[in-house]
Amino acid sequence: MTGWLAIAGLGPGAAQLVTPEVTAALAEATDIVGYAPYVARVPERPGLTRHRSDNREEIDRAGLALRLAAEGRRVVVVSSGDPGVFAMAAAVFEAVDAGDPAWRDLDIRVLPGISAMFAAAARIGAPLGHDFCAINLSDNLKPWGLVERRLRLAAQADFVIALYNPLSSARPWQLGRAFELLREEISGSVPVVFARAVSDATETIETVTLRDAVAGRADMRTLVLIGSSRTRLIARAGGQPFVYTPRSAGVPS
Amino acid sequence: MTGWLAIAGLGPGAAQLVTPEVTAALAEATDIVGYAPYVARVPERPGLTRHRSDNREEIDRAGLALRLAAEGRRVVVVSSGDPGVFAMAAAVFEAVDAGDPAWRDLDIRVLPGISAMFAAAARIGAPLGHDFCAINLSDNLKPWGLVERRLRLAAQADFVIALYNPLSSARPWQLGRAFELLREEISGSVPVVFARAVSDATETIETVTLRDAVAGRADMRTLVLIGSSRTRLIARAGGQPFVYTPRSAGVPS
Repeated sequence: MTGWLAIAGLGPGAAQLVTPEVTAALAEATDIVGYAPYVARVPERPGLTRHRSDNREEIDRAGLALRLAAEGRRVVVVSSGDPGVFAMAAAVFEAVDAGDPAWRDLDIRVLPGISAMFAAAARIGAPLGHDFCAINLSDNLKPWGLVERRLRLAAQADFVIALYNPLSSARPWQLGRAFELLREEISGSVPVVFARAVSDATETIETVTLRDAVAGRADMRTLVLIGSSRTRLIARAGGQPFVYTPRSAGVPS
Repeated sequence: MTGWLAIAGLGPGAAQLVTPEVTAALAEATDIVGYAPYVARVPERPGLTRHRSDNREEIDRAGLALRLAAEGRRVVVVSSGDPGVFAMAAAVFEAVDAGDPAWRDLDIRVLPGISAMFAAAARIGAPLGHDFCAINLSDNLKPWGLVERRLRLAAQADFVIALYNPLSSARPWQLGRAFELLREEISGSVPVVFARAVSDATETIETVTLRDAVAGRADMRTLVLIGSSRTRLIARAGGQPFVYTPRSAGVPS
């Protein structure tokens, strides 16, 4: 048996957002490796071993997946959203880079998925319709000073900003500090969207202004989108406003 | 018949990357609206009208789709990649905002797709594994000065940078100028990836350094990814190197 390793994106939650490519890889796999709640999204079947791990163990998990593939197993590492965005793909390549040189010539593929950012954007309109950036707000793997610097530069560039991992019990104050800092750089009237558990049964989406944004609205499953100076709301009689950023910014020079 | 409008992402090209949600919407549609090459990706069938338009006619196309939905048709506006990223979703909401107030209460949904950026990243490893931004290099709808400002700020933030629409016959010099400007801000040794026609039969991917990057390698179907200071290559005996950006950046403060 020739082993392989696929790092697959399961999308934000709904089965309707899993690509056929990922579904096919899961059907051929002998082993599923990942954070327990994502592994739980792959049903049990004979011949399939599911390896669950904790949230903080990305590198161990990547090493396990690579060893299994090197032994000839067909391994799928599962991430939610897109595996290339603050998820398992980078962890696997870090492990390849630092590990057994033979791992470099394994059959390793990344299978893209619907990212949390684009799923959240789609639910409310088109907030990412113009230039944007994505920042992981966690300071577990980078200095908080660098996060602040990036937030200020992103605000000065008038990017729409997507914040991943805005808050956890171990990182309670960072999102509030980010809002405070952004209010120093940009207008308090820009829309801020809190998109939680997008495409799940428990989905909630709230749109407020930066002026009124408070960190308590977010949790570990929330993606926060901060509009640019051009982001607009369209009020509707029957529900949430649409939020979009027009394609144009000022008059062409 | 109750009309609706779905703005759907067909992904980068391969059928394996189209979500079941999009496939279902296409199967229920009475009308497909879009840029001719994307409309051509939806097979003809009885009862389906396909409306093709030119590249530059986004707002007319959006208006047509909204009028059809208001008349009770089931309309899918097709984009490649994700419809929310430099594509049709923003154009539709611009048309809603400026058009018939009744359009606000139509059933309008955005169906996310696999974006060019994440598809390209997946083909080479995990270049977007850390903080990143996406910039539309076209100055059709914004002043070139703003593009330059954003490129400089993004480089100063040490973001990985994805450049959409890098080049066309009407915009021949902008990408070369962007490389020149980035070489003033960041090291010439950062990797630059030219990903063309990702997931298509004609896919080509080239990785060079910023020092050696020349605009002539790109065309209208190319996505250009510029690494951050942390982006690394993993050489392989059997083919293209992997390109990835580690999750960590410096020692936490």
